[in-house]
Amino acid sequence: MTLPEEGRRRVIIENVQPELDGGRFAIKRTVHEKVIVEADICGDGHDLLSSVLKYRRDGGDWTEVAMEPMPNDRWRGEFTVENIGLYFYTLEGWVDRFACWQRDLEKKVAAGQEVSLEFLIGAQLIDEATKRAEGENSEKLRQYAKTLRARGREPCSDIVAGSLLREISRLMARYPDKRFSTHYDKELPVVVDREEARFSTWYEMFPRSSSAEPGRHGTFKDCEARLPYIQSMGFDVLYLPPIHPIGKTHKKGKNNTDAATPEDPGSPWAIGSEEGGHKSVSPSLGTLDDFKELLAKARERGIEVALDLAFQCSPDHPYVREHPEWFRRRPDGSIQYAENPPKKYQDIYPLDFETDAWRDLWQELKGVLLFWIEQGVRIFRVDNPHTKPFRFWAWILNEIKRDHPDVIFLSEAFTRPKVMYELARLGFSQSYTYFAWRNTRAEITEYLTELTQTEVREYFRMNLWPNTPDILTEYLQFGGRPAFMTRLVLAATLGASYGIYGPAFEFCENLPREPGSEEYLNSEKYEIRHWPIERPDTLRDYIARVNRIRRENPALQSDWSLRFHAADNDQIICYSKTTGDLANVILVVVNLDPHHKQSGWLHFSLEALGLGAGRSYQAHDLLSDARYIWQGPRNYVELDPRVTPAHIFRFRRRVRTEKDFDYFM
Amino acid sequence: MTLPEEGRRRVIIENVQPELDGGRFAIKRTVHEKVIVEADICGDGHDLLSSVLKYRRDGGDWTEVAMEPMPNDRWRGEFTVENIGLYFYTLEGWVDRFACWQRDLEKKVAAGQEVSLEFLIGAQLIDEATKRAEGENSEKLRQYAKTLRARGREPCSDIVAGSLLREISRLMARYPDKRFSTHYDKELPVVVDREEARFSTWYEMFPRSSSAEPGRHGTFKDCEARLPYIQSMGFDVLYLPPIHPIGKTHKKGKNNTDAATPEDPGSPWAIGSEEGGHKSVSPSLGTLDDFKELLAKARERGIEVALDLAFQCSPDHPYVREHPEWFRRRPDGSIQYAENPPKKYQDIYPLDFETDAWRDLWQELKGVLLFWIEQGVRIFRVDNPHTKPFRFWAWILNEIKRDHPDVIFLSEAFTRPKVMYELARLGFSQSYTYFAWRNTRAEITEYLTELTQTEVREYFRMNLWPNTPDILTEYLQFGGRPAFMTRLVLAATLGASYGIYGPAFEFCENLPREPGSEEYLNSEKYEIRHWPIERPDTLRDYIARVNRIRRENPALQSDWSLRFHAADNDQIICYSKTTGDLANVILVVVNLDPHHKQSGWLHFSLEALGLGAGRSYQAHDLLSDARYIWQGPRNYVELDPRVTPAHIFRFRRRVRTEKDFDYFM
Repeated sequence: MTLPEEGRRRVIIENVQPELDGGRFAIKRTVHEKVIVEADICGDGHDLLSSVLKYRRDGGDWTEVAMEPMPNDRWRGEFTVENIGLYFYTLEGWVDRFACWQRDLEKKVAAGQEVSLEFLIGAQLIDEATKRAEGENSEKLRQYAKTLRARGREPCSDIVAGSLLREISRLMARYPDKRFSTHYDKELPVVVDREEARFSTWYEMFPRSSSAEPGRHGTFKDCEARLPYIQSMGFDVLYLPPIHPIGKTHKKGKNNTDAATPEDPGSPWAIGSEEGGHKSVSPSLGTLDDFKELLAKARERGIEVALDLAFQCSPDHPYVREHPEWFRRRPDGSIQYAENPPKKYQDIYPLDFETDAWRDLWQELKGVLLFWIEQGVRIFRVDNPHTKPFRFWAWILNEIKRDHPDVIFLSEAFTRPKVMYELARLGFSQSYTYFAWRNTRAEITEYLTELTQTEVREYFRMNLWPNTPDILTEYLQFGGRPAFMTRLVLAATLGASYGIYGPAFEFCENLPREPGSEEYLNSEKYEIRHWPIERPDTLRDYIARVNRIRRENPALQSDWSLRFHAADNDQIICYSKTTGDLANVILVVVNLDPHHKQSGWLHFSLEALGLGAGRSYQAHDLLSDARYIWQGPRNYVELDPRVTPAHIFRFRRRVRTEKDFDYFM
Repeated sequence: MTLPEEGRRRVIIENVQPELDGGRFAIKRTVHEKVIVEADICGDGHDLLSSVLKYRRDGGDWTEVAMEPMPNDRWRGEFTVENIGLYFYTLEGWVDRFACWQRDLEKKVAAGQEVSLEFLIGAQLIDEATKRAEGENSEKLRQYAKTLRARGREPCSDIVAGSLLREISRLMARYPDKRFSTHYDKELPVVVDREEARFSTWYEMFPRSSSAEPGRHGTFKDCEARLPYIQSMGFDVLYLPPIHPIGKTHKKGKNNTDAATPEDPGSPWAIGSEEGGHKSVSPSLGTLDDFKELLAKARERGIEVALDLAFQCSPDHPYVREHPEWFRRRPDGSIQYAENPPKKYQDIYPLDFETDAWRDLWQELKGVLLFWIEQGVRIFRVDNPHTKPFRFWAWILNEIKRDHPDVIFLSEAFTRPKVMYELARLGFSQSYTYFAWRNTRAEITEYLTELTQTEVREYFRMNLWPNTPDILTEYLQFGGRPAFMTRLVLAATLGASYGIYGPAFEFCENLPREPGSEEYLNSEKYEIRHWPIERPDTLRDYIARVNRIRRENPALQSDWSLRFHAADNDQIICYSKTTGDLANVILVVVNLDPHHKQSGWLHFSLEALGLGAGRSYQAHDLLSDARYIWQGPRNYVELDPRVTPAHIFRFRRRVRTEKDFDYFM
C-alpha cells in the first residue's frame, strides 16, 4: 500500500444517509422539500471537529451549511431544494484546532491553571486565520491576536469569561483551517420533481367509453365533455389507456376471447396498425389536434392528461415491416409473439431488447417519448416496465429528465418486490404498489410502514390504486359499496398519490369475469362500455368530498409522516398524517370490515400529534362534519359500514386565552 | 446519459453481503472458514437466470462456484478460504436462455401443445453452445442438436419425460451463453488470518514483577521460569507491557504520583531513555538475546509472546533529540506533553502526526514493527490506537500484513463505538471491547448479540478481558472470588478469544486506588509487585479447567454461533455455542449475582441445539463433572456462587440402538 498523498487528513466520513448504493441512484424530492443528511464523522483522539454539508444544482456552485453533532459521532445537516432538476450533495469535515484550543483553555482556566502560553498558542492560530480572511475581518483577527499576545503573562480569566473569546471564535469559525480536511469521496444525487410527483389524484378512463350516447365509440371530444365530471370529483390527472391505432391480426374479442367480430374494437394495448404506431392516434378517437385540444381544455380545469407508454406492438405495427430486426424470429421465419407458457398472446409482439440493433431501438423509443412531450404531455404511465431491461430504463429516464425535468413517470410494475424497487431507483417518479392486495390491518401496517418509514421512501413514491382495469380484487367483489368507500378512503389518505379506474369504481362495478378471477366481466379492455355518469347512486359525491379533504389538508399531501396507532379491535385501523409544524394534524380511522359495525378504543400518542395531555381537543370528522370533544390518548369509535366506514378527523387544539375562555384554533 | 457500451446486460447484481462500505474494507476470516455470499440478482421479465460466485487468492486465478436461488430474488453461494493472506470475491449473472427454453417447453408439453418448433429453437441454442464447448463435449452437443432436429414434426413428449433433456441441460450448463452477462463491478476483499486470530487465550503479565524473590526486579529469565505456570493454566498468548527503556524525566511514582523516588521504576508506557527507544529492551529486564530466548522457550510450550506497541515517547526518548520535528512545539520552544485538560501527563510526549515530516515518521514506526517481527514476534497489542490517525493504521496494517500475513494485531481502543469499529475495519485482527462494563443479562445479551450476529462480526473480532492493568471494575471490587469466577467463565465462553491480566486476576486482587476508581491500588504500572504464585487459594486450577474446556470443545473456538436463551430469573444468563454440524453443543449457564444463590427455569430451542423433542439427553457440566439427564426445552438450574457460579454443559444426545439400549454418543 503506497503512502497516501496527504496522511494528515484525520477525519473520516462514513455511513452517509441518505445514500443509495454508493450514490449510484438518486434520492427523490419535490421542490421545497428538505434533504436531511446524516453521517458518521469522527477523528482520532479527542479533538473537536467541524463539518459542512455541501450542495449544488447540477452545473452550479456549492453552498455550504454547517452540520451539527448528535450523539455517538453522528452529524446532521439539511438543505431545501427549490428547483426541479438534479442536485448533488457531499460532505467535508476537519479537525477544528481553534475549537480544541478554546475548549482546553476554558478547562484550564476553570482549574486555575496558568494559561499565558495558551494565549500565545491561540494568537498563533488567529495569525494563520488572518491569511485566510479578507479585508476588514482579516484586520479584526489581527487585532484579536494582538490583544491575546498583549495580555502576555497577566491573568486572563476575564477574557475567557467575557464576550471577547466568543467574538473571536465566531469570526474564526468563518475561516477554518481546512488544509487537512476530509472530503467525502462521493457527490450524491437528488432528483427534484415538481410537486405533482408527490401529490397527485389520478382518474383512469377509457376514451372510447366516454360517449354520452350508448353504443357510440367515444372520442377525444367526448373526453372533453367528461372533464367537468372529473373535475367535480377533484382529480388532477386524467390517465388514458393507449390512444394509438389498434391492430387487427389476432384481435381479441369481448372478455379476452380469440373470436373477435369485425365490430370488436380490440385491446388498446395491441398497438399499431396500418393507421400508424406509437406516434399516431387512433382515428376512431379523433385527430392529433383533437387530442391537443383535450390537453388544453383539461389544463384549463387543472387537470393534466397522462398517456400510457406501452412499448409493444401488434403484428400490424409499422415497426414490424420497417424494423423486422427489432423482433425475435423463430426458426420457421415467424415472429415470436408474447407468451407466458402455456398462455399465448398472439396479438402482441414484444420488442426484442437483445437485438443487435438495440441502439436504434432505444433511440426510436426515446423518439416516441419526445414526440408526446412535444404535444404537451408531461405525465406517462409506463406499462409493464419490468419486461424491458433495467439498463434501458436507466438510460431513457435520465435522457428525458435531463432535458425535461418536469416529466413524471409512473411505473406499472406489478411484479416481485426487488424488481419494483429497482425500477423506482432507476428513475421512475411514482410506482404502483401491492396496496390492492393489502386488506387486513397487519398487512396494511407492515407494507405502508416499509414504504414510508424505511430507506425505500427515498426512491419509491407510492401511487395507491384500489382498482385498475386489470385488478378487481376479491375485497371489492364481495364487500359491496362499503368496500369501495373503505378502499377509497384508505388509498386517498394513506397515499399522497392515489388513483381509481373509473367510472367502474364510482359505479361500484364488482362482477368478475369468472369466479376466482380479478378480471372485470365485460372489461373495457375488450369492449366499449357506456356509463350513465349522472346516475345519483354512484360514489361521485363521496369521492369529491374525500378529494376536497386531501386538497385542504397539507398533511395528506405527503407520505413520510404516516404513523399507525393502536386500536383494540383488529378490524379498525387508525393512522395519522401531520405537517412538520403540526399545524395540520389528520387522524384517519377506518372499519376494514365491510359487513359489520365495528367499535373499539383507539390509543395514540398525544405528543406526536401535538396535543397537550391535560386538555381536551376537537376531533372534527371531515367526512361527516361531526365534531367530537376528545380528551387524552384513549378514545372510543364506532363505525357502521352501511352509514360510514371511516372517519377522517382533523384535530384542533383547544387553547385557553388570557380570559380563560376556550375557543377553537 | 450516453448509451452504455452493451445495453443487453439484463441482469442486475445488488445488495451483496458481506460487503463493507462498497468493498473499501476487507471482511475477516481465518483459514478453513467459509465465506457465505448473498446478493439480489434479478433481471427483467420472467426469464431464468444463472449466477456464479467467483473467488481468488491475491494474484491468483478465479474459481467459480454456482450460486443457488433463494426466495425473493436472493442468491447464495459459498467458498472456503484455505490459506492466510488476501482473497477477493465477486459475482456474475446472466439470463439462462437454455433454462428458459426448457422450462417453457415442459409447460407447453404438459399443456399438450405442439412443440416441434420449440425443438428447433432448442437445437439452435445447442448449436451455439458447441462453439463454446471443446472436444468430446462439443461433439456430444452436436449430436444432441441433431437428435432434436431429427424429431422434427414427430411427437416429442418422450424426450421431455425421459432422461435425454436432463443430460442435455447438464451439459449445456457447463457452456452457458455469457455474452450479455453482468459482472458485479467490485472485487470484494477478504483478509484471511491464521486460526489464532479467531481463537486465542491471553495472559498479560508485567515482566518486572515476575521474579520469584520479593523485592528483586524481574527479568526475561524470570519470565521463562514463569512459563510452566502460565502453560499449566492453558494460556497460549503471553502479552507483555512495553519492555523498552523507561524515561526518567517526570517519571511517575507509586500510585501514579508525581513525586517519584530514584528507586521507582516508572511506567513502562513512558518509553525511551538514553538506553534506547522502541527498538531497545530495558537493560533491567535483560538483553535482546534474553528476550529472544524467552520467545523460543515460550514457543516450545505452545505459548506466543505478544508485545505492546505504544507509539509515544518519554521526554528522554532518542527521537526527541534526533527528530524534534516529530513533536509539537509550544511558543516557548518546549515540546507539548500529553494532556487531557486539566490533567497533564508530562512524562509522555505524543508523536505529532500532523508534522510536515509525517512520511518519515510513518516509515520509522513501520521500521519498529519490522524490527520486532524480525526478532520473531507475531502478535502485537496496540496501545491506544485511537489516538493516532486512521489513515496511518490503514497504511501500516496493510503494509505489514502484505509481507507478513501471519501477524496479529489487537486493538486496545477503549473509546467511542464508531472509532473502535473503524479501527477494526481498517485491519486490526482483534479488538478490546466494552465487555468489562457489561454485567447484567440485558447488557451482555444486547452487546454480544451486536458483536456476533450483525455485520460487525465481519470485521470486529472481540477479545474479552474481565480485567486489565487499567480496569478493575466495580463488579470485581465488590463481588469477591465468585465475581472473578463468573467473569472468567463469561469471558472464556462468550469469546473465542479472551484474556486476563494476572497474576492480579487469579489472586482476586480487588482493591481500588481510591473509592470510585477503576485503578488498582499499588498498580504494577508504577511499581514492582511480588506474586507468590504457588499459593493454593488462587483461581489457578479453575482457570486451567475453563481453558481445558475451551481447548476440548470446538464450539467455544469461534463466536458466530453464539445464541442467548431464556431464563425466568434475570440473574441467570444462558447461552449456547455450537459447531456447524452440531457435533459439539455447549450450553453455558451463569449466575450473575456473586452474592446469592439463584435458581430458575431455562428455556431453549431443542432444534437449534440438535436435540430431539421426544428424547432425553445428557447435560454434562464440564466444570463440576456432574451429569444431568434432561428432557424437553425447559429445565431447572440452581447456582450457588459460593460453590460454583456457572455450568458449562456439553449436551450429548441419547441414541436408541437396534437393541433398544440407550448409550451416550
